[in-house]
Amino acid sequence: MKSLLIRGGTVVNADREQRADVLCVNGVIAEVGEALSAPMGATILEAGGQYVMPGGIDPHTHMNFPFMGTRTVDDFYSGTAAGLAGGTTSIIDFVIPDPQQPLMDAYRQWRQWAEVAASDYSFHVAITWWGESVHADMGTLVREEGVNSFKHFMAYKNAIMCDDETLVNSFRRALALGAMPTVHAENGELVFLLQQEMKAQGITGPEGHPLSRPPAVEAEAAQRAIAIADVLNVPIYVVHVSSAETAEAIARARARGQRVYGEVLAGHLVVDDSVYRDPRFEFAAAHVMSPPFRAKGHQEALWRHLQAGALQTTATDHCTFCAAQKAAGRLDFSKIPNGTGGVEERMAVLWDAGVNSGRLTPSEFVSVTSANAAKLFNLYPRKGCVAKGADADLVVWDPAGTKTFSAASQHSKGDFNIFEGRTVTGVPSHTISQGTVVFAQGELRAEAGAGRYLKRPAFGPQFTALGRKAALAAPVAVAR
Amino acid sequence: MKSLLIRGGTVVNADREQRADVLCVNGVIAEVGEALSAPMGATILEAGGQYVMPGGIDPHTHMNFPFMGTRTVDDFYSGTAAGLAGGTTSIIDFVIPDPQQPLMDAYRQWRQWAEVAASDYSFHVAITWWGESVHADMGTLVREEGVNSFKHFMAYKNAIMCDDETLVNSFRRALALGAMPTVHAENGELVFLLQQEMKAQGITGPEGHPLSRPPAVEAEAAQRAIAIADVLNVPIYVVHVSSAETAEAIARARARGQRVYGEVLAGHLVVDDSVYRDPRFEFAAAHVMSPPFRAKGHQEALWRHLQAGALQTTATDHCTFCAAQKAAGRLDFSKIPNGTGGVEERMAVLWDAGVNSGRLTPSEFVSVTSANAAKLFNLYPRKGCVAKGADADLVVWDPAGTKTFSAASQHSKGDFNIFEGRTVTGVPSHTISQGTVVFAQGELRAEAGAGRYLKRPAFGPQFTALGRKAALAAPVAVAR
Amino acid sequence: MKSLLIRGGTVVNADREQRADVLCVNGVIAEVGEALSAPMGATILEAGGQYVMPGGIDPHTHMNFPFMGTRTVDDFYSGTAAGLAGGTTSIIDFVIPDPQQPLMDAYRQWRQWAEVAASDYSFHVAITWWGESVHADMGTLVREEGVNSFKHFMAYKNAIMCDDETLVNSFRRALALGAMPTVHAENGELVFLLQQEMKAQGITGPEGHPLSRPPAVEAEAAQRAIAIADVLNVPIYVVHVSSAETAEAIARARARGQRVYGEVLAGHLVVDDSVYRDPRFEFAAAHVMSPPFRAKGHQEALWRHLQAGALQTTATDHCTFCAAQKAAGRLDFSKIPNGTGGVEERMAVLWDAGVNSGRLTPSEFVSVTSANAAKLFNLYPRKGCVAKGADADLVVWDPAGTKTFSAASQHSKGDFNIFEGRTVTGVPSHTISQGTVVFAQGELRAEAGAGRYLKRPAFGPQFTALGRKAALAAPVAVAR
Amino acid sequence: MKSLLIRGGTVVNADREQRADVLCVNGVIAEVGEALSAPMGATILEAGGQYVMPGGIDPHTHMNFPFMGTRTVDDFYSGTAAGLAGGTTSIIDFVIPDPQQPLMDAYRQWRQWAEVAASDYSFHVAITWWGESVHADMGTLVREEGVNSFKHFMAYKNAIMCDDETLVNSFRRALALGAMPTVHAENGELVFLLQQEMKAQGITGPEGHPLSRPPAVEAEAAQRAIAIADVLNVPIYVVHVSSAETAEAIARARARGQRVYGEVLAGHLVVDDSVYRDPRFEFAAAHVMSPPFRAKGHQEALWRHLQAGALQTTATDHCTFCAAQKAAGRLDFSKIPNGTGGVEERMAVLWDAGVNSGRLTPSEFVSVTSANAAKLFNLYPRKGCVAKGADADLVVWDPAGTKTFSAASQHSKGDFNIFEGRTVTGVPSHTISQGTVVFAQGELRAEAGAGRYLKRPAFGPQFTALGRKAALAAPVAVAR
Ligand SMILES: [Zn+2]
Ligand SMILES: [Zn+2]
Ligand SMILES: [Zn+2]
Ligand SMILES: [Zn+2]
Ligand SMILES: [Zn+2]
Ligand SMILES: [Zn+2]
Ligand SMILES: [Zn+2]
Ligand SMILES: [Zn+2]
Repeated sequence: MKSLLIRGGTVVNADREQRADVLCVNGVIAEVGEALSAPMGATILEAGGQYVMPGGIDPHTHMNFPFMGTRTVDDFYSGTAAGLAGGTTSIIDFVIPDPQQPLMDAYRQWRQWAEVAASDYSFHVAITWWGESVHADMGTLVREEGVNSFKHFMAYKNAIMCDDETLVNSFRRALALGAMPTVHAENGELVFLLQQEMKAQGITGPEGHPLSRPPAVEAEAAQRAIAIADVLNVPIYVVHVSSAETAEAIARARARGQRVYGEVLAGHLVVDDSVYRDPRFEFAAAHVMSPPFRAKGHQEALWRHLQAGALQTTATDHCTFCAAQKAAGRLDFSKIPNGTGGVEERMAVLWDAGVNSGRLTPSEFVSVTSANAAKLFNLYPRKGCVAKGADADLVVWDPAGTKTFSAASQHSKGDFNIFEGRTVTGVPSHTISQGTVVFAQGELRAEAGAGRYLKRPAFGPQFTALGRKAALAAPVAVAR
Repeated sequence: MKSLLIRGGTVVNADREQRADVLCVNGVIAEVGEALSAPMGATILEAGGQYVMPGGIDPHTHMNFPFMGTRTVDDFYSGTAAGLAGGTTSIIDFVIPDPQQPLMDAYRQWRQWAEVAASDYSFHVAITWWGESVHADMGTLVREEGVNSFKHFMAYKNAIMCDDETLVNSFRRALALGAMPTVHAENGELVFLLQQEMKAQGITGPEGHPLSRPPAVEAEAAQRAIAIADVLNVPIYVVHVSSAETAEAIARARARGQRVYGEVLAGHLVVDDSVYRDPRFEFAAAHVMSPPFRAKGHQEALWRHLQAGALQTTATDHCTFCAAQKAAGRLDFSKIPNGTGGVEERMAVLWDAGVNSGRLTPSEFVSVTSANAAKLFNLYPRKGCVAKGADADLVVWDPAGTKTFSAASQHSKGDFNIFEGRTVTGVPSHTISQGTVVFAQGELRAEAGAGRYLKRPAFGPQFTALGRKAALAAPVAVAR
Repeated sequence: MKSLLIRGGTVVNADREQRADVLCVNGVIAEVGEALSAPMGATILEAGGQYVMPGGIDPHTHMNFPFMGTRTVDDFYSGTAAGLAGGTTSIIDFVIPDPQQPLMDAYRQWRQWAEVAASDYSFHVAITWWGESVHADMGTLVREEGVNSFKHFMAYKNAIMCDDETLVNSFRRALALGAMPTVHAENGELVFLLQQEMKAQGITGPEGHPLSRPPAVEAEAAQRAIAIADVLNVPIYVVHVSSAETAEAIARARARGQRVYGEVLAGHLVVDDSVYRDPRFEFAAAHVMSPPFRAKGHQEALWRHLQAGALQTTATDHCTFCAAQKAAGRLDFSKIPNGTGGVEERMAVLWDAGVNSGRLTPSEFVSVTSANAAKLFNLYPRKGCVAKGADADLVVWDPAGTKTFSAASQHSKGDFNIFEGRTVTGVPSHTISQGTVVFAQGELRAEAGAGRYLKRPAFGPQFTALGRKAALAAPVAVAR
Repeated sequence: MKSLLIRGGTVVNADREQRADVLCVNGVIAEVGEALSAPMGATILEAGGQYVMPGGIDPHTHMNFPFMGTRTVDDFYSGTAAGLAGGTTSIIDFVIPDPQQPLMDAYRQWRQWAEVAASDYSFHVAITWWGESVHADMGTLVREEGVNSFKHFMAYKNAIMCDDETLVNSFRRALALGAMPTVHAENGELVFLLQQEMKAQGITGPEGHPLSRPPAVEAEAAQRAIAIADVLNVPIYVVHVSSAETAEAIARARARGQRVYGEVLAGHLVVDDSVYRDPRFEFAAAHVMSPPFRAKGHQEALWRHLQAGALQTTATDHCTFCAAQKAAGRLDFSKIPNGTGGVEERMAVLWDAGVNSGRLTPSEFVSVTSANAAKLFNLYPRKGCVAKGADADLVVWDPAGTKTFSAASQHSKGDFNIFEGRTVTGVPSHTISQGTVVFAQGELRAEAGAGRYLKRPAFGPQFTALGRKAALAAPVAVAR
């Protein structure tokens, strides 16, 4: 029996704060309460009044991802280790089959890659094509493998983009299986045209990237996916919402009572599109990701919709390529591998820019960094909650601690940091994974392979409600 | 020299009302003013205080239209004659090529069909496929044939539906030519799926029609077209806006400064979707058109957006099929030929439900029944305006006259009237086309072949403004 | 030691459902978990798979209320007893001083009236005038008496209405004290004018009530209060939101990141304004309350905003007058005492119309019937949560049970039921207050005086966030 | 007979552009047409392809205005002369009675002051208090003096502010008289409180001005006025809309079908609030006006709503105080006389920032600089239209001409120019007032006393429509 007692902290959950100790036994929280006594042999961690919160869940990462002809520099070990250093104790990554590749093949491949993970992890599976086998494999994945969410790329024409016919079929199937469809929302047809036009006009540098993916391109796709989900009575989750227009589309749908959810990246909340006009190719290219960083005004809009609850989760889309890889697009921005990092910085960025500014209470911070993701993807309360019976994945948060982000000191293997030079107040002092302290006062003790694959059950609580709604709205024939 | 003096009326234009006489000479308005004297031999029409207004323009009709395996019962003679009986003196019909059919072939075919028209007419041309010849023919049509608008069907999968790639190409081409793209906005993929599902659930009657085309299906497509137009900096005109959601999408885009326009049908303003649940197949089927009539609440929304200027024009989508034709879908609603009439009733429906209710002033009535259509399709001030130099297409309007609509007494050759039994106050007492009284106190004197084809010049006034906006927003490369 | 074990139920909290037993000891929840063993002498309640939820909190009632020259028929005993019969275990009532009456005097008076309460209760205090003593008494109430919310009536001119100057002063004071301002939002000046006009036009019956209080009158006041709160950086809670326009005003403010909250009454969710045109005066008058019931379309809007989270709480404004009292306004609707009942029916109405329709999950039901009110008024997790340490106020909910509401069988002393004849599915089988079963299978065992006054601490969690925001936005002088 | 022929220009009206000559005889337009021949003795003005447009109408100026203890430096001569130099040929100024001052006294006073005007002028009359005589004088002003609009200040507490009771009474009276209510929309209670708080915090400089009048203060008042107008079925015109929030409030009301209008000032369209933080008191104070200039983002919002038609008119609130006068508030920003100039620059600012940017077509420019104001205040088509019979108030516009604004060269007697240093492309080459060239190529020939008082008839076209709407909505008693 291995136990850890975290003593003297303020436990923060999504619903409240309380002064309490937390006792972890064999990787699980055994007790939350005042003045707990330590079992024999227990490790004692004195929280000293710091916050004790659920470890972060990053619901959007790409580790060891083969993309645009290359592969991300962070594998599942370095990526999850970086997460632990930042207080994130679970990730949900993506299995992305090539078009025509059997889903199960891709799934097994990713499972194998992930065996070195240092923290717990799970997988969304992308639907990049349609066919009988896809229909069947979705069933297998949900019923046997604990996959309860499927991703759809509405951009990346001639690659992994799926058209409306596939969207419609996959959404219907997901509903039947009790799984959540998610979308990368950009109109791939428009992106493709604009890329050609930019290059025809001699815009070949990274500034062509945002010019070919304006906010309207994202909002259109998001609205389309939302409308399809509405008509089919399926819940829908929009990943990496980057613009005011898209957030508003989500808010409007929610105001109609639709079950629509939105994720925002730490990067989109604080980085703006001026980076693409930097005269250094390397700097500009390092920021190339999709959707791109936006004009400054969008940040305020994203924050407000996050505060209001129209956006529920924060993620990173952690997907790191080094300068040498980014250089593939030196003569053509559309060939720059898309992706940036952030899994280590997300929690502190959110605290510093969110809690310190009064936008979020500590409980709201927990909601948007872990609890909501856990609920939406049906990991709750095993994850995202400091409560008896939950996994002992915790972060002890020092609201007064400070840190300056830098590629030089980061744990990711990437050579760039989009938050470079930003000093934050509010950092993790300790991270606990499965009841073990894996990060303490700057020292990282991540262990390759310690992470477990998380099965996520289908039919989260909202599916019953959706079913009732559908039953009441069922069409009735007119007798003639 | 043939002249007509309309004496003692109140002339109503979009900008104002004035007591004035109107003198028409050789088909053109020669003078508008007080106490005009009649030239030798002039016909005198005593208006007796009634309103003298521009003849109506119906910018959306389908005469002699081969569709869904049959052909509309109204040809260009009976259709335009019905229009004249209702105060409408011009129509804009549609040339709709089959996929792969050369545009010019279709255009010439329709021109021939239209030679029997009793009133002036013009043509939008539909883009139902894409190719080099389409690109070239669009140029010919604009430059030589006076076509300045192109239609795109976003529904009717496996028939005339065009995908996003075609939309994008055609919108780009239209902009270069100074022509207006228009869209029939319904997501064809969703309609197709829902049709299959309805039938699979045993819903084969006309009630399946609205069930397979809910408002969200329309709003999605409208938003998509608007977003594409926004990104490409093209004006856009959405035909037959039938739902609150679609009108709101247009209003939102306009509030962003986008040049977006919306048309609403007389039918959608006053008829609701309860008609589809009528136990008589014939009655229900007679109302099958797309988008379908909507739940009652949408009517109020459409009126309000029309009042607010988010919707600018009123039309009918006049497209008449008789009961025998509609019967083709007796066992499968998706086979019922889509279309309803209205070209004769539109003006009176708008006056009765719009002016008498205080929603519209008489000037606003002129705006939405003729002037705005003339401006948007660059026929103004030749049409849509009572002014010296304009075509003498006029309607003398009796605000106290009443009429009860009925298929039994209508001039359309159709055997059904969607406004059957509705009594309106405010009717045309006389219609003047090209300076000739063609309808007087209930007596119709329409003449086959009297109508002329109207060439509409490209590059309406807004294109200069769009060009300036584009120039200022032109992308600039970063020097590296 | 008195203990109760609720065995074999599904515990529902705002964040999740779980199969668990609940052990209550001495009025407090001692344990929530699987297969708990019963202490010696414990009462066992077999839940038989039913839901075990936090007892309802009705944050808006008026028991024993002297108003419009009379007094409500329900006193604190009969009113709270009716609540217990419906699964509601706490109420927050209102202390409403007369203008110029010292707040503390009124407060003491209400405390005395409440001593007979059968369930726990608390008080909002109304600010009906302004002065030094009001400023001082607000401090005393917050610091010594556990009042953390103040109510403002924007209507009832020449009675308890407070003007903008008082609003502004009181909101500022509330912020300093860490208390929540709440508003009854109707523009009293417009109501007054419209009442005079209706009567001048001969509209003296109850139909004059809604005609003099249209939705715009409510939305105006709500927007004003919200704007003032925004400018002053105070949270704000709008009671009894009855119209789409008001809900939208709240949603808009929330989308801007403002901390605005809205309450909706069970009655407004399911009753419409046709009641006022009933030919029976008694029936129409029995529905007179402010804001009035609305046209049917508003109900859907309210439900959708409740689902979306723009509205957070449900209440009743339980305020019962009998037919003899209502008769005071037989000749003048403005003299009909305003008020209707509902404390007993609220939970079941919400379940039946909310959960059974698929609008709400069971967890969302808990949020809107208890947890959110507890959080906003800082009673959480003592109330609104089934968790160790919380008060043992619970309801065992039978989702298959049915009931038909009727004045004849209700526990309220009122002689009318606005839900008369409505049959619901989903009813409380047992209510537990302070660990005691006070309602079981239709049998009510409420005990006068068993209820306790609930002190609510000031400075709920959002005040820290508001303070941080204010600090960042603090104005800075320009050095000149 | 005095005649002027403007030859070879492009005539621009709100509805279209046309190549045409314009013949003016005795101060009135005698003919608009191609190749007009000049009468004997006519002056010929060769337009050389320039635009010939209606002279501007500035519907919001304050000449010779006694305010905040001093008087504007521009009297009716210098103010209207400056207008003529900028292409503006009519102004609508304000009669502003002191509280308790008889309206007719104030009216006569202003009429006398205006006798020196160089261009035509008219008056709105402010309602600053309420009483029997006000009610009576409103009638006299409308029926005998040609006043058809009344202004209400919702700010300036303890001075000219009117409360809701006065608003409600005056709006009702205006409706009965067929006159338009207008509002200066700011919540005076909040402004007052914030002014005190700023000063209490040591913010005494001009930066305290915008800090005490944030956008929410304006939007609140605008929404209140709009709501009151909605309930009372009165049209409403909001002067100097300065913020996104207020423009949105207007747009929302219009989308509901309400007849609401908004005016935007040239200054608010291009000047931002950074001016108030300038270290030079004189510079900052010179920009003090209410509502204040706003953060930059509001400008884009105002432009978009102007383009979309939610805002219809542009004005200046020309109200000039010199540095010595502004110095009265050196120690207390609330004592700085509120007001800035602009009557000379408005048209060119609108052309340069509006037409050259592609936001407006030339016809839309005419709408927002003259035609819409003429229509709303019932001066159309006498003003705001280049048509036979209209007043010969014209501007010949050189789209290629440039000018740099400066206090040094302006015609206003003010010593400051809020557009100082701004170079515009597009300027008046000639201004014609009453058929006389009063400004030619930079030379101003304004004549004191040449201007005429413009009577504006009541019951503009929308009043009939409002009456019909009211009749249909008239309340009906229930028979009991
Ligand atoms: Zn993506
Ligand atoms: Zn991704
Ligand atoms: Zn169509
Ligand atoms: Zn059509
Ligand atoms: Zn109330
Ligand atoms: Zn109440
Ligand atoms: Zn003002
Ligand atoms: Zn002013």
